Amino acid sequence: MTPFHADDSALSKARLSIVGLGPGSPELLTPQARIVLEQSQAILGYHVYINLIPTELLAGKQVLASGMRREVERCTQAVEMALQGVDTVLVSSGDSGIYGMAGPCLEVLEQRGMLDKVDVTVVPGIPALAAAAALLGAPLMHDFAVISLSDLLTPWERILERIKHAARADFVMVLYNPRSRGRDWQLATALEVMAAYLAPETPVGLVRNAYRAEQEVSVWTLATLPVARVDMLSIVFIGNSQTRALGAKLLTPRGYPLG
Amino acid sequence: MTPFHADDSALSKARLSIVGLGPGSPELLTPQARIVLEQSQAILGYHVYINLIPTELLAGKQVLASGMRREVERCTQAVEMALQGVDTVLVSSGDSGIYGMAGPCLEVLEQRGMLDKVDVTVVPGIPALAAAAALLGAPLMHDFAVISLSDLLTPWERILERIKHAARADFVMVLYNPRSRGRDWQLATALEVMAAYLAPETPVGLVRNAYRAEQEVSVWTLATLPVARVDMLSIVFIGNSQTRALGAKLLTPRGYPLG
Repeated sequence: MTPFHADDSALSKARLSIVGLGPGSPELLTPQARIVLEQSQAILGYHVYINLIPTELLAGKQVLASGMRREVERCTQAVEMALQGVDTVLVSSGDSGIYGMAGPCLEVLEQRGMLDKVDVTVVPGIPALAAAAALLGAPLMHDFAVISLSDLLTPWERILERIKHAARADFVMVLYNPRSRGRDWQLATALEVMAAYLAPETPVGLVRNAYRAEQEVSVWTLATLPVARVDMLSIVFIGNSQTRALGAKLLTPRGYPLG
Repeated sequence: MTPFHADDSALSKARLSIVGLGPGSPELLTPQARIVLEQSQAILGYHVYINLIPTELLAGKQVLASGMRREVERCTQAVEMALQGVDTVLVSSGDSGIYGMAGPCLEVLEQRGMLDKVDVTVVPGIPALAAAAALLGAPLMHDFAVISLSDLLTPWERILERIKHAARADFVMVLYNPRSRGRDWQLATALEVMAAYLAPETPVGLVRNAYRAEQEVSVWTLATLPVARVDMLSIVFIGNSQTRALGAKLLTPRGYPLG
């Protein structure tokens, strides 16, 4: 809880916080994230995420919004500002620790041998997987695997291997980055691979823009998911062998005897 | 966002909210969870979780705290109260959608044929996996599998199968319910099984009481994890083949070129 009870040694150190904003609704921004943003001097992030921050928290701050795929650049800039004594916050949507900015920041600090010069605090946020699951009801009541379908940094073959193992182990699967304009074939291929292991009627949940304007929640099956409607604002849940659709909700039973 | 903008049809319906409290610190209780608790008439939950709720939110409410392993009983009671017109909240720690109360509540409603009689809202919370990961730095920057080691409701052989597939697929693993007084051998056995697939120096993170009094965060390896120190207030992270320890932190690189 460093930001709230900083001791003298921490005060003399550079401070960098990596904050998860949650899905974007102010009602799901944690008080800790709000306090850290309030107390900061500079806020950096992808411009879409900066736009999720309530404007009163940006007022009077140095705000540096940048474009897509500038992750390492943003981390480097944030580290440099923190080392100059600026109380700096780097934001992610969802949780900054799940495919977020916490990792590349630590890597930049490690590469520069600066890990002990900067007091790094990761402030958790409501992850996309939890926000989307809440809107679907209860898809994650049992063991699950979280897999990004982005092959920008990970070989596609490794992603497929993970999907095969997850299917064979009967994990519920949560697919991050399922599809984008530039990556338009991976989801369909992934579903074909899954079809070798899972029944065609396996329930599938699709959530777009969770807790934002234009929120969409829908339930399909492995055979009927409308792939073309999935985009980079979406997250996809593939049920396990026990998952069932209850109207517009998904339920993966934990196994409690109902008596 | 039903609880905030209820329309007339919703007002005539029974209301049941299933709320994730996060790890327990008020700074990580979302504003949405706080509002739903404030506006409720009755709050039900395991007594340890009821104790995590700020006392001002309990004042004037019917509060029903019950013991361990009474999940279905609590859900049944909550459903009955909601059907009687009481605005009812059932709480979980962490996120109520991850091994939480959202599932058994939907099952109870389904069994009684009451799914369309009750307006169920799942309010997400900071999951234990995100809270603990934040304290460890960045263990979840790449694909991961979430596995409960509790064999109370799941056959132990199925749990081991999932561990084997997760290890072979090089998932980071997050172990929920790793060990308790009554389940004292499962973690050691799981680690032995993992040792057939993972290097003994694979980094392991142990977090106890995340964001609560007596918080403990430590980094070990698959070979050195002090199993006897793990209890039911703990969550364990097993790194993938790329995870490294950076002092007291864990980093699983995403693969960004640092240039």
